[in-house]
Amino acid sequence: MAVVLPFDPAAEVSAAPSIEGIVNLVRADMERVNALILSRTGSDVTMIPEVAQHLISSGGKRLRPMLTLATAGLAAYQGDGAVKLAASVEFMHTATLLHDDVVDDSEMRRGKLAARMLWGNEASVLVGDFLLGQAFRMMIEVGNLTALDILSNAAVVIAEGEVAQLAAAKNTATSEDEYLAVIRGKTAELFAAACEVGPVLAERPKAEQVACRSYGMNLGIAFQLVDDVLDYGGSGAALGKNVGDDFREGKITLPIILAFRRGTEEERDFWRRSLERGEIGEGDLARAVGLLECHQALADTVKRARHYGSMACDALGLFPAGPAKRALLDVVEFCISRVN
Amino acid sequence: MAVVLPFDPAAEVSAAPSIEGIVNLVRADMERVNALILSRTGSDVTMIPEVAQHLISSGGKRLRPMLTLATAGLAAYQGDGAVKLAASVEFMHTATLLHDDVVDDSEMRRGKLAARMLWGNEASVLVGDFLLGQAFRMMIEVGNLTALDILSNAAVVIAEGEVAQLAAAKNTATSEDEYLAVIRGKTAELFAAACEVGPVLAERPKAEQVACRSYGMNLGIAFQLVDDVLDYGGSGAALGKNVGDDFREGKITLPIILAFRRGTEEERDFWRRSLERGEIGEGDLARAVGLLECHQALADTVKRARHYGSMACDALGLFPAGPAKRALLDVVEFCISRVN
Repeated sequence: MAVVLPFDPAAEVSAAPSIEGIVNLVRADMERVNALILSRTGSDVTMIPEVAQHLISSGGKRLRPMLTLATAGLAAYQGDGAVKLAASVEFMHTATLLHDDVVDDSEMRRGKLAARMLWGNEASVLVGDFLLGQAFRMMIEVGNLTALDILSNAAVVIAEGEVAQLAAAKNTATSEDEYLAVIRGKTAELFAAACEVGPVLAERPKAEQVACRSYGMNLGIAFQLVDDVLDYGGSGAALGKNVGDDFREGKITLPIILAFRRGTEEERDFWRRSLERGEIGEGDLARAVGLLECHQALADTVKRARHYGSMACDALGLFPAGPAKRALLDVVEFCISRVN
Repeated sequence: MAVVLPFDPAAEVSAAPSIEGIVNLVRADMERVNALILSRTGSDVTMIPEVAQHLISSGGKRLRPMLTLATAGLAAYQGDGAVKLAASVEFMHTATLLHDDVVDDSEMRRGKLAARMLWGNEASVLVGDFLLGQAFRMMIEVGNLTALDILSNAAVVIAEGEVAQLAAAKNTATSEDEYLAVIRGKTAELFAAACEVGPVLAERPKAEQVACRSYGMNLGIAFQLVDDVLDYGGSGAALGKNVGDDFREGKITLPIILAFRRGTEEERDFWRRSLERGEIGEGDLARAVGLLECHQALADTVKRARHYGSMACDALGLFPAGPAKRALLDVVEFCISRVN
């Protein structure tokens, strides 16, 4: 008799790193977050929900609010505040995306036309302001001054990081450390704040607050570095934006920094011409990708991302094993494995 | 013998309505506000203080923070919180100006090139976000949740008002009531919030908080209506922007609404062509001003402003006479008399 092995499609899927763990962990609370997001984008000024919903309903993973809920769970938080702070974090993120699209002249976002292409830069700026205001209102409703302090500080640091990126834009002399400072601000700070407010709400010891912040910060750095790689490697459909956007915008990211430093003087001239002076012709994107590959710049950026991913995982060492910790550790692996 | 009348230049000056009363009243605290503004625009990212200082040092009157200090004085507030809230209010205002310039494609602001002309739209959007974040941080430091609620709500309402204006832009069918709703949001709400937080900090009875809010709201409406008139009448130097900016941008303001409704069908065609379709030729601004004058639209907008100014003054009726009340009443007269 033949032994019949039962076929379990779920087991197949879970072989690849996924965010299913965190999705299942916070499912019930995320429904409340999503309802809150929907209700707080409402306005008599009909353009506001239109613009906001265009972006919000476009299938972002909502990773940041899930992190707030999961770290609140890790800290055994029992109250209602985490749901509102999670929605606030997503609004802060959405506001940043709307403003970023204006700053970067982006045409695509999450596989759809950027809001500014449909409603103009004006609406993107102002609806971003509206969402940021609503984020603060929700935080204030929660009434925890430490959490307010963390999230408002994050808003300042994010803006600083974005301006620093603007100032460094098109400067091929940017060092790896300078670039790290930029992405700590523009990306990782919100991950850090999203993870820190959970144990703060739960009034856990300072060491646990610091641990969750550190987890978020390092996860955020890893996340951004992988994004930088995807911009030269993913397919537009999977990425939701066009491959080579960073190149065309003259953005100096870690793969570029590595290839520039490892390259010949002739190659550096190529980078200066294309990124600093914006003189980009046919075949230049392909040449850029070729140089990045020849110098292992993409593979080594992923290695760097793995380093920060390890730091994120180790930051959670203080916490006992359990479903929340397992889910948070899986998120790190998922974020890095997006590149495969 | 001839009687020698002593000459008092101060008496001469005070004959014309001025803001000297409020300036003298809050002088000491405004020095602390100005120091705070300077220190909180600091950043290692040098572009941030550059952009912020360009606008902040360009000689705005700082009317809004003075209102916060004066209403705190009216409410006999003794603590330190009003200075930080006053600085927050000015930062919120500055952030709005930076974003407005991007939304309106403005070239001038307060008689200087708009920041976006020097550093680009990108920096204006992001430094605006930075200042808004800093505003929230200062509010949170004060730690009064009601004041936080009022100011964060104002941030949302301002953004809503701006979007509503965008949606109504170039629509000559906008009614006076619809326009009022827009300026309540985009301008008057911040005046109202700036005036409300003083008595809130002082924990004065609700009736006094409402009275100060009402004073600010109506003052703000009057202020905006006079601004609308100045756009067709002031000199560019005094105004700090170019006469006719609103006309060229197709902005529907109260003078236009009145002239449109009072005009002939041929005149309405002119307004539709110039404001809705943006087909503006030589002589069209002069024709617009001619029509506004022929229909008393500018004079009647000033009359409307006087109406809201009266409401603002009456709102303070609850408070006993004193230097703070006198200064606040003078501000109303000053704001309206700018048009003379």
